[in-house]
Amino acid sequence: MTDPAPAALPSPPYYAVVFTSVRTAGDDGFQETDERLMKLAAEQPGFLGVDAAAGADGLGIVVSYWKDEESIAAWRDHAEHALAREYGREHWYASYALHVAKVERAHRFAT
Amino acid sequence: MTDPAPAALPSPPYYAVVFTSVRTAGDDGFQETDERLMKLAAEQPGFLGVDAAAGADGLGIVVSYWKDEESIAAWRDHAEHALAREYGREHWYASYALHVAKVERAHRFAT
Repeated sequence: MTDPAPAALPSPPYYAVVFTSVRTAGDDGFQETDERLMKLAAEQPGFLGVDAAAGADGLGIVVSYWKDEESIAAWRDHAEHALAREYGREHWYASYALHVAKVERAHRFAT
Repeated sequence: MTDPAPAALPSPPYYAVVFTSVRTAGDDGFQETDERLMKLAAEQPGFLGVDAAAGADGLGIVVSYWKDEESIAAWRDHAEHALAREYGREHWYASYALHVAKVERAHRFAT
């Protein structure tokens, strides 16, 4: 395991999908599906990187980065992703918000 | 204290500032300043909302939402914020990435 670091990304412009969610109690297959989908997303054309954090209060944020709108749409329509999303609305999430945003500028800092 | 929920926001377009960071060990005044700055940010013109999550691995994500580029620039140049940022680079953060992105579309789900 490596130390955590913000995803390494190319220069803008590219897209960010910000997924902010509040989990229901219990796992109900979430961890396994989440890991599987993270792996699958990383294999998709146009995927650039992902950062994720979840606090003890149940609120989690996943920011995935994509080359363009087309790659985001293709991942949205991926059968396994669509199925998990449907299951998630019924079992895993009390609430969520999804934002699709065009990254105009970015900078990094590292010690 | 209320249950956590993704920030309530108006309809797009608006801006998201995605701040992904890895903390150094120890607090060193971080919590206090973080709370103070979150409160201060919420008072700024053009501030729309914020979501934050930090995992046990040290990686944290704060997504703040703003009306436009001007309100982001004004907050960036706020004296107290600038001072904290400088201190943060020296004491609190091993690394961070900052993304400024224009939210083109968004949707919400709640049970």
